[in-house]
Amino acid sequence: MKPVIGSVSLLFYFVKSCRASGADIALDAKATLLHRIDSLNLLIYTCLLTLTVLTIWVFKHRRVSWLHETGLAVIYGLIVGAIIRYAGSTNQVTYLDAHPEPNAKYNLSVPPDIVRFHFPDKIQISSGEIPVPNKTYAYSFRGEIVNLEQNEIDLKATFDPEIFFNIILPPIIFHAGYCLKRKYFFRNLGAILTFAMVGTALSALVIGSLMYGCVQLMPASLAASFTFLDTLYFGALISPTDPLTVLAIFSQLKVDVNLYAMIFGESVLNDAVALVLSGAIQNYEKRYSTDGGFEITAFLAAIGDFIGIFSLSLLVGAFIGCLTALISKFTHVRDWPLLESALFVLMSYAAFLIAEVCELTGVVAVLFCGICQAHYTYNNLSSDSRNRTKQLFELLNFLAENFIFTYIGVSMFTFPKHHFDPWFIIAGFLTSTLGRAINIYPLSFLLNLGRKPPIPMNFQHMLFFSGLRGAMSFALAIRNTVSEARQAMLTTTSLVVIATVVLQGGAASHALAYLRIPTGQGQSDESEALPYRDVRSLYQATDTGRPPAEISFGLQNMDSTHSPSSDRASDTPRGSGDGGGEKARLARLWGAIDSKLLKPLLTHARPPLTETLPAFLRPLARLLTTTRQYTQGDNGLRRTDSDSDLCIDEPQPVPTTIDPQQLWPGLVDTRISVEGITGSNI
Amino acid sequence: MKPVIGSVSLLFYFVKSCRASGADIALDAKATLLHRIDSLNLLIYTCLLTLTVLTIWVFKHRRVSWLHETGLAVIYGLIVGAIIRYAGSTNQVTYLDAHPEPNAKYNLSVPPDIVRFHFPDKIQISSGEIPVPNKTYAYSFRGEIVNLEQNEIDLKATFDPEIFFNIILPPIIFHAGYCLKRKYFFRNLGAILTFAMVGTALSALVIGSLMYGCVQLMPASLAASFTFLDTLYFGALISPTDPLTVLAIFSQLKVDVNLYAMIFGESVLNDAVALVLSGAIQNYEKRYSTDGGFEITAFLAAIGDFIGIFSLSLLVGAFIGCLTALISKFTHVRDWPLLESALFVLMSYAAFLIAEVCELTGVVAVLFCGICQAHYTYNNLSSDSRNRTKQLFELLNFLAENFIFTYIGVSMFTFPKHHFDPWFIIAGFLTSTLGRAINIYPLSFLLNLGRKPPIPMNFQHMLFFSGLRGAMSFALAIRNTVSEARQAMLTTTSLVVIATVVLQGGAASHALAYLRIPTGQGQSDESEALPYRDVRSLYQATDTGRPPAEISFGLQNMDSTHSPSSDRASDTPRGSGDGGGEKARLARLWGAIDSKLLKPLLTHARPPLTETLPAFLRPLARLLTTTRQYTQGDNGLRRTDSDSDLCIDEPQPVPTTIDPQQLWPGLVDTRISVEGITGSNI
Repeated sequence: MKPVIGSVSLLFYFVKSCRASGADIALDAKATLLHRIDSLNLLIYTCLLTLTVLTIWVFKHRRVSWLHETGLAVIYGLIVGAIIRYAGSTNQVTYLDAHPEPNAKYNLSVPPDIVRFHFPDKIQISSGEIPVPNKTYAYSFRGEIVNLEQNEIDLKATFDPEIFFNIILPPIIFHAGYCLKRKYFFRNLGAILTFAMVGTALSALVIGSLMYGCVQLMPASLAASFTFLDTLYFGALISPTDPLTVLAIFSQLKVDVNLYAMIFGESVLNDAVALVLSGAIQNYEKRYSTDGGFEITAFLAAIGDFIGIFSLSLLVGAFIGCLTALISKFTHVRDWPLLESALFVLMSYAAFLIAEVCELTGVVAVLFCGICQAHYTYNNLSSDSRNRTKQLFELLNFLAENFIFTYIGVSMFTFPKHHFDPWFIIAGFLTSTLGRAINIYPLSFLLNLGRKPPIPMNFQHMLFFSGLRGAMSFALAIRNTVSEARQAMLTTTSLVVIATVVLQGGAASHALAYLRIPTGQGQSDESEALPYRDVRSLYQATDTGRPPAEISFGLQNMDSTHSPSSDRASDTPRGSGDGGGEKARLARLWGAIDSKLLKPLLTHARPPLTETLPAFLRPLARLLTTTRQYTQGDNGLRRTDSDSDLCIDEPQPVPTTIDPQQLWPGLVDTRISVEGITGSNI
Repeated sequence: MKPVIGSVSLLFYFVKSCRASGADIALDAKATLLHRIDSLNLLIYTCLLTLTVLTIWVFKHRRVSWLHETGLAVIYGLIVGAIIRYAGSTNQVTYLDAHPEPNAKYNLSVPPDIVRFHFPDKIQISSGEIPVPNKTYAYSFRGEIVNLEQNEIDLKATFDPEIFFNIILPPIIFHAGYCLKRKYFFRNLGAILTFAMVGTALSALVIGSLMYGCVQLMPASLAASFTFLDTLYFGALISPTDPLTVLAIFSQLKVDVNLYAMIFGESVLNDAVALVLSGAIQNYEKRYSTDGGFEITAFLAAIGDFIGIFSLSLLVGAFIGCLTALISKFTHVRDWPLLESALFVLMSYAAFLIAEVCELTGVVAVLFCGICQAHYTYNNLSSDSRNRTKQLFELLNFLAENFIFTYIGVSMFTFPKHHFDPWFIIAGFLTSTLGRAINIYPLSFLLNLGRKPPIPMNFQHMLFFSGLRGAMSFALAIRNTVSEARQAMLTTTSLVVIATVVLQGGAASHALAYLRIPTGQGQSDESEALPYRDVRSLYQATDTGRPPAEISFGLQNMDSTHSPSSDRASDTPRGSGDGGGEKARLARLWGAIDSKLLKPLLTHARPPLTETLPAFLRPLARLLTTTRQYTQGDNGLRRTDSDSDLCIDEPQPVPTTIDPQQLWPGLVDTRISVEGITGSNI
């Protein structure tokens, strides 16, 4: 391993000069060398991922459960990182100091983009090398050098941190949105939003305050370098939990769907929340950085920032998702699945880019774009495109996830800007655990006050236990490592991520057993398939196609105006926690808008707009209704059905046959409605 | 559109500074602006691609045939490029001249990687701006500035040329290899290799010589800037043909499979040949650049370079492909299709990276890796992985292709280093046409001397006509634009690509009709499906599973030792042009090795190694044979069968039901064997 100029990138920046001379040939050889080193770096990660894939297979084959695949990726990364660090040669990046031309005029307040560096003949060449000729070279701006002594920015096998936000995270987050089990997501929306929004903010605040307190007790040198905003930023970046590990185990063990939905929904949303939150903190910091104290107007502006950016990003994503749905509904592009898939991918990527261009958060836009794509567009796609997009994003997600965890391992040793401070690390571990506890237990208590089937205590413990930290925390921490405080944060975050992923991830299945959360392991595939047939015959028996009243509890008034066929599609009971009147009313309103306006407008679902819209809008409604919507029978219905649980049946079916009654008495219908969907998904 | 520092990349290089001050905030705002501009550039291309996809759909829907999708992408690119160029603001990249510190010591013969640029207070600020503080910034090396006056390197919506070789071309080339219809490829191997290897070299030499002659007749200013090596390089880069457009039309119109195979095989291979050839010319140029004259030893070294790099790259790719086959055969990773697909993608990418690390040509490695993956690994994959990898690379290929053609259009206006020289452009068009003619007609004549079913004249015309230039030519031309000569080459190449893709691509279907090359449009799907059943019953009637002797012409001696089941798998007749004894013997040898050693070793195909290897190697053979290989019946056979024509049935089935006898008398068996494969592929 040789060092790499600046940061290794996927794009192998180098410029080849063609007119050959002594220096040119040397330059060319150097460019070739750099290209080879870049390729070698990528090759190392590719081999590490290959190794991880093979080991995952061995583990799955031998049913090893004490270590999960992401933990494995981290451990491999650590090993290879150590090898690179201690065995690698120390070929340094070369430096030269330069000054502007004495008489240069310059009318900008920022440093120039390009420096034209004149290489004079008179420069002292130490030994018998070929002299550098009198030439001019272009140098492009990279950043400020804060610490002139620390000149060995010797980046080995490291990437530009922005890669995470622009290349690695978007497919992961999109896939999460695309795979969100919307039925259970909406049913537990209250709890999920509370944990993700309120909980994350609370956790960030608590961790930030406690860390600030801890830092004040530490040696003065460190204490001086942390402001309250720094520790608050640390709180924001360490708060989001990672869905990967625990959920993979959950779906293997077929845990209760509501618990699954809560953990998945929370961890997807709190990534988005934490990203926007940390952006707001940084904006605040930029504006009022003098002492780190609070200023009320700026604080309010930061909150406004947070709400504005989050909701605008959401809107951008949702808009693009709906636009894709409209295009796929009203054109016959589905006759050419390749074009359709390409359109789907391009539009989803456009959501990310549009948000970035508008200075919003692309990752948040991509999340909600994914949710809309799954909720609406997926219904319009040809079956070929459904498979293709599902499998494409599944693969991208897998590779991106494992890459990021491998990278966390490698960078522990190779990233030059680590700062190990034992006190800060210990404090970080303690406060992040405490922050998770403060997120879960008090909020669960409050939620249970208004929630009809309360969240049982063992579920709360599991929610607490599944607070692994992952990709988003790491990406936020490595984004900015200018100051010593930030470097200490990166180190602590890396360690917290590694420890939680390896230890908690490995222990998750044992925790499930210890907490006596029933898993569906014992049930066979036959028993899964059967109840579905029962349900369907039940539907057919009632003849309206609607589930009997005792099954569709709580939402009868909303359903009452619906045509039979749409009920199964979108209105199977949702919002189990509708004890709070206001929230339930909101959920009902949204459900009504969704099934009466959005679904008929954006998909081929029935009832068509001609039935749901008021009479004076009929001409418009007729325009927006496809012939397929009028004519489709049971076939079209089944098609619409399948959107609700897109990814439920892979890699191994998600819990469908646990009897939830013994566990969570209010949810009699859970099993039945899941079956109703997984069955039609095949 | 605002200009972009250096080159816009997918990775959005920018460094955020955190400690806020006046200049820092300005710097931060600038970084944000640059990020937004980068995102905007990507968004422009994303929107262009989306537009292209939608227009392709409209064209397919309305059955427009006078313009093909790649032509469309180019035209959209041209329009948007013009808009960007003439409507964009002219926000300039800022420059400053710099000199090294007076007493700096420096002991390298190349310029340093990083320049630490000290910003003094005393720098003259023109107007009432915030003064630049006394800070140090890092600047990284970008390249030599040749022309100090030409300081407006104002790159709008342009990417680093290396992106093409490292991001865009690999999936295109891999997909080509993965989709190569190996049966017809091997049958026409002689013609394909002749056209691709000899033809491309001949064409490069002829174009190079003619261009050199033309340049000498031109105004002295231009003539002086071209050496013979320059024009030879131009010959090498303009010689490779692009498979995309013509082949898409061919597969729509169901043209004769042998013509299809020849054009596809040639254009895939000549991309690889041209890439290595141009590399060899550049290496030669680097070594002996004084006068551009020839020197025998260097010339031989260049030929050695060419052969060595080509064959080593081939070996690397083939080795990785076989390694993947072995892993997928001997592990049960196919039980987890996601892992399997990830492994497949990672190994294929590793082939590219390994070749690049070894200073070979990654694109060539990836091509042969793709061929091996399709020939061996594909047989071992689970059906889920087959679909997934096929669809993944199909989508990547589609996006990459359309991106590159859109980019060719946009860069005509936005790339700053174009040099329009009418004489050079005219000469380029004439010589490239002539070069293609010299490739096809004399070589066809020579081939026909030893080829039993000769290549008919209308096929030769079609081969000539399908010499569109495409992605590889453009990528090679834009790689190096340092000198005026190279810039003139880029302009000419871009224009040749645009003209051939738009005009020839659009006229291809008319050319087919004019040349009376029969297309299979009239035949319905029923008539396609029927003959297959006939063939199968024919196979079953002979009871051994082997085709009757008159069908498997020419290869009886090779087949004689085979077990019945492997015949259909790999030994359906191959090498129709086996008039030349040597070539036929080589083809037979390869066929024997492939079916007796490689296929049984690398896949689950029968006969197992225990039957094909000599007795003293039995223990080893038993080790390398899976139980599935022993036990599989007809099912396993059909599985093996399907590898031969991986992509034949998409997007619309490739010619299978033309009666070749009326057209090409020697190929009675063509139809039958194709049916035997497409049928089992479903």
